[in-house]
Amino acid sequence: MRDPRYDILFEPVQIGPVRTRNRFYQVPHCNGMGHVHPSAMARMRGIKAEGGWGVVCTEECEISPLSEFSPYIEARLWDDRDIPALARMCEAVHEHGSLAGVELAFNGYSAPNRYSREIPWAPSNTPVRSYDPVQARAMDRADIQQLRALHRAAALRAREAGFDIIYVYAGHDLGLPFHFLTPRNNRRTDEYGGVLENRVRLLRELIEDTRDAVGDRCAVAVRLAVDEQMADGLSREGEGAGIFSMLADLPDLWDVNLADWSNDSVTARFAAEGYQEPCLLGLKALTRKPVVGVGRFTSPDTMASLVRRGVLDLIGAARPSIADPFLPKKIEQGRAEEIRECIGCNVCVSGDHTSTPLRCTQNPTMGEEWRRGWHPEVVARVQRPGQALVVGAGPAGLECARILGGRGMDVALVDSLRTLGGRVAQEARLPGLASWARVIDYRLDALSRLSSVQTYRESPMQAEDVLDFAAEHVFIATGCHWRRDGLGRALRQAPAGLECMPVLTPDDLMAGVLPASPVLLFDDDHYYMGSVLAEHLVAHGIEVIFVTPASDVAAWTHNTLEQHRIQRRLLQLGVTLVLSHTLVSVGPHGVVAGCVYTERPRRMPAASLLLVTSREPEQGLYQALKDTPERLQVAGIRTLALVGDCVAPGTIAAAVYSGHRIAREFDAPEGSLVVRREIPFIEV
Amino acid sequence: MRDPRYDILFEPVQIGPVRTRNRFYQVPHCNGMGHVHPSAMARMRGIKAEGGWGVVCTEECEISPLSEFSPYIEARLWDDRDIPALARMCEAVHEHGSLAGVELAFNGYSAPNRYSREIPWAPSNTPVRSYDPVQARAMDRADIQQLRALHRAAALRAREAGFDIIYVYAGHDLGLPFHFLTPRNNRRTDEYGGVLENRVRLLRELIEDTRDAVGDRCAVAVRLAVDEQMADGLSREGEGAGIFSMLADLPDLWDVNLADWSNDSVTARFAAEGYQEPCLLGLKALTRKPVVGVGRFTSPDTMASLVRRGVLDLIGAARPSIADPFLPKKIEQGRAEEIRECIGCNVCVSGDHTSTPLRCTQNPTMGEEWRRGWHPEVVARVQRPGQALVVGAGPAGLECARILGGRGMDVALVDSLRTLGGRVAQEARLPGLASWARVIDYRLDALSRLSSVQTYRESPMQAEDVLDFAAEHVFIATGCHWRRDGLGRALRQAPAGLECMPVLTPDDLMAGVLPASPVLLFDDDHYYMGSVLAEHLVAHGIEVIFVTPASDVAAWTHNTLEQHRIQRRLLQLGVTLVLSHTLVSVGPHGVVAGCVYTERPRRMPAASLLLVTSREPEQGLYQALKDTPERLQVAGIRTLALVGDCVAPGTIAAAVYSGHRIAREFDAPEGSLVVRREIPFIEV
Repeated sequence: MRDPRYDILFEPVQIGPVRTRNRFYQVPHCNGMGHVHPSAMARMRGIKAEGGWGVVCTEECEISPLSEFSPYIEARLWDDRDIPALARMCEAVHEHGSLAGVELAFNGYSAPNRYSREIPWAPSNTPVRSYDPVQARAMDRADIQQLRALHRAAALRAREAGFDIIYVYAGHDLGLPFHFLTPRNNRRTDEYGGVLENRVRLLRELIEDTRDAVGDRCAVAVRLAVDEQMADGLSREGEGAGIFSMLADLPDLWDVNLADWSNDSVTARFAAEGYQEPCLLGLKALTRKPVVGVGRFTSPDTMASLVRRGVLDLIGAARPSIADPFLPKKIEQGRAEEIRECIGCNVCVSGDHTSTPLRCTQNPTMGEEWRRGWHPEVVARVQRPGQALVVGAGPAGLECARILGGRGMDVALVDSLRTLGGRVAQEARLPGLASWARVIDYRLDALSRLSSVQTYRESPMQAEDVLDFAAEHVFIATGCHWRRDGLGRALRQAPAGLECMPVLTPDDLMAGVLPASPVLLFDDDHYYMGSVLAEHLVAHGIEVIFVTPASDVAAWTHNTLEQHRIQRRLLQLGVTLVLSHTLVSVGPHGVVAGCVYTERPRRMPAASLLLVTSREPEQGLYQALKDTPERLQVAGIRTLALVGDCVAPGTIAAAVYSGHRIAREFDAPEGSLVVRREIPFIEV
Repeated sequence: MRDPRYDILFEPVQIGPVRTRNRFYQVPHCNGMGHVHPSAMARMRGIKAEGGWGVVCTEECEISPLSEFSPYIEARLWDDRDIPALARMCEAVHEHGSLAGVELAFNGYSAPNRYSREIPWAPSNTPVRSYDPVQARAMDRADIQQLRALHRAAALRAREAGFDIIYVYAGHDLGLPFHFLTPRNNRRTDEYGGVLENRVRLLRELIEDTRDAVGDRCAVAVRLAVDEQMADGLSREGEGAGIFSMLADLPDLWDVNLADWSNDSVTARFAAEGYQEPCLLGLKALTRKPVVGVGRFTSPDTMASLVRRGVLDLIGAARPSIADPFLPKKIEQGRAEEIRECIGCNVCVSGDHTSTPLRCTQNPTMGEEWRRGWHPEVVARVQRPGQALVVGAGPAGLECARILGGRGMDVALVDSLRTLGGRVAQEARLPGLASWARVIDYRLDALSRLSSVQTYRESPMQAEDVLDFAAEHVFIATGCHWRRDGLGRALRQAPAGLECMPVLTPDDLMAGVLPASPVLLFDDDHYYMGSVLAEHLVAHGIEVIFVTPASDVAAWTHNTLEQHRIQRRLLQLGVTLVLSHTLVSVGPHGVVAGCVYTERPRRMPAASLLLVTSREPEQGLYQALKDTPERLQVAGIRTLALVGDCVAPGTIAAAVYSGHRIAREFDAPEGSLVVRREIPFIEV
């Protein structure tokens, strides 16, 4: 049963006219499903309600084509045609006794209106935020009245859809009401510009309008960024608190955070759990209304402490609710140690950034709840119990064994090493990635509860061993290794002269090898590995020359909100950056790189070369088995499958997903798996 | 009537089992509508058939979730559920007697499968093309069989949808069959790798499969890139021709072009009409089947010559068919001078790149055919004929006057200058942008045919003049000017010290001013202007230091397939690039820039400063009129509207669209305008 220390988290909280059953609050978060995949979005939110989140909110919800966020996929309430999709989400949330919230958003110059082609609005004339060749125009009074009318109409539609909490959105430096607050965006000289009182006017009016329209039945929430973490931005101690104080009791609920999004959702590499607390402290004293805030909270002790210390009334979560939709229920049922903790990698954010459904490293069912019918806590028993052998206890093997065990199979999980976790165990020792070990911790804990799963360490397996073991179902999860020949995106054959210089791979460094200084690090991977290793090398006193064909460091991490932090850190560490260059040839004393635009050569002295380009799957064991089908048959092996990085190397999230999927699906009769999707309704 | 020189263009051509009525062939092109906006796509294609294109094709059409192109919006034939949307397109095309073609595409490692999460396939293990942290896996024989089965099944669905021509796609280095062709992508040692015969095997099999499945009723086309314009790529004289020869008579139609897409669709800034001809010459001699090729053809003389000289059988077009869907009909009807010629700006491509419906600088109805009901050649007569005054003959004013005139209004179009065209007239004189004058040429020609439109040059208008003129409807299209204070995305207030140094704007340069060398050019616009002016300055012997907060030059031109060409050109011209830096302060002898990551200052000597940051609308005349509503009433002015860049500065495409839209819609009764959109069908 529940630990009484956590009772406080299960107290109901009154929010204006509605009451939430507990203090667990899923704040609005993007998910790459939105109005394009509304059934998927609704099901995902419904599962969070089932998992105990007392409030479950949408993502940003467009209120008008005058500010639409294409190609980013958010929710939409342009007109009545959009109500059914969101009503479905409300039903899914209400079914489990939770409240449904909607974040009405009008993003002004943050939205270039690529689809609608409407001219964006702003407090003052300005180019849009992105590099689109579009400028926003200063709103006149009629525009402000129109905006208020649009917001009011959307609030009414939201109430009709069934929402209990309706937001005015002034967060992340995205919403137009926030743009009005900040002098750098607001150069107006009328009653909406100048002194703070004036800059707050629009936000105040929108709150009043919303209360007036729907306040009888719905709570009015404000999501406000109280600090922008930048020189000319709002600060918690300055106007951030001033705005909060001015509006103190006007909304029914305060949802406070930091701007911009990259400061609100910092990865674990750059901030620890609870990193927003300094900006949250003291806000509750300024209002009688409940306050919700976030900080990648996964510890129930931290949560209870925040409430007890009077920092927050409601524990906000986006990422932790993605990693574990059942986090509240697990605390409630005294199973807190079973929480699948967010590792803070922001793979979830990349879904929104690439306009595709979000994924989660820890929770492979995220985004699959509707289309594949996957539940994060429930797996179907196998029809035919039997024995399974999983070779390799990396992220894919661990997850595969966990699900097979949960389905009632007898599972043997074997690994050649003493330390389980495969690549995750290694990578989690690199600078800033310690929290990634949670991928292993969660799974080892889960396996320890499954009596039908046996784990064997230090047990290297050859084909003979697998055949001798004679499990009916064999899953090979032997991972991958980094290539030593430079092949990847830029190089389609090995560069000349590789034999002239010591060449290392990330595997070597993770095994403890330290290369001779200076190292030329060639990063054609573009995710975290190159920059993390550069940090690691500098920490060991090794000089690093970082060469990449991309125009910035760790280019893909724009999608995890990390790129600017990574490049800043490398520059501050004194790493030499050679951008937009590829590797041409290697000599005994240095390397020739070539400009990707002009092919102009650039010679750089180096004592060693570190290649971070691509990985090669470890398929030796699989091939040895596959090449002898008759022996498989004799051994009674009916399933022989590759899982995870040894199919094709990818993210840890992809490896976990691979292990999860095959464990769910390996015994499905042919043709029985249905992947649902939504097709546009063809209007004639 | 039709010029007999062009009769040859209207000869029918047999393509396998089908016959096209003429030689005008809309090759497959992306459009950002695809499966998400299928009605819009169908209507757009239908209008091209109406305009006389004998063949009208889809964009790339996904055949399976094993290779899906999210977030890019293409066509889709994963299963039978996708047939109705494409059947609608076929009906729209057939209605006008044209043939419908579909480009079946399986893009292997060019598609990271962000939505489906399936592991991409490739000839050999490789990271995907984009920077996604995903690797593709080498296909085994079973995969190849599965691919063939998928392609065959999709061909059958395409036939069921009603298509007449079914493509096997091996173009642009995008499709997997093309990846098999090229040694840098294909390191296989089995019968699908090694010698050319082996690398061609998959493409050959797919052609044979398709013919076998649907060849009775449908033509089988192959889209092949015969030259990659790169050192280790296919070349026309080498294996490009070899592949073509090997398969010479196997397909019913050859659609040949260059890879990658940026080489196939080069902008006018970097290539002239017909630039692909050297790679097309001689191919016809290698086959008995008809050949279609492209080259941004807008001249009927060029087209006729290509057929007469035996270069092509069919005149392929993507961009020219977007700029003028009625190009064939205009030639047929002896109205060739009315062709709205593509200017080669690639704004159309940016639609695909940003996953939003395509736009066209020349054709503002593009993408609006279905949702707004706009036809490129038909406008409704006004209910109440009357007099309109259009002030400013830039792109917005010209288009506004053209449509108003076409609708039966009496129009006076006035401009303060002798040369009409506004910003387009100025920009078209900059290096590489000459073809942009077509925006003016087309409209001046159209206006010359409209007797109800009078054009007044060198007629500056003050508010008094407008009131005296007393037209019932007044449209202000007075454009914009570049800001001289640096405000834009990066700078939210003017930098210190601007008064210390000569500061210029693009307007100054276009007016003929040449700044003192060296010039520090600060580009916070990120489209073409900064780089074009850098070229212009270098051509005048002026040294340029190009500073931009972006990590590459002209960052938005990734969306127009130009970025690499632009940055290469500036580097080759000796322009100093200072990337990822913003402007901090200005002194008498130089400028301080700051790193956008670390804020580290960097001092650079400069004699003058050129600010390419943002633009300010010219609203003086409008405001003067708007501030005296009583005088407007006395003068009988019922409509007073801002149009184009003086609403908010943007692209030329946006200005033309603005002028077009207001001329169509200014008299619509309130609430009468409907914008259609497609809503996902909510499966329960």
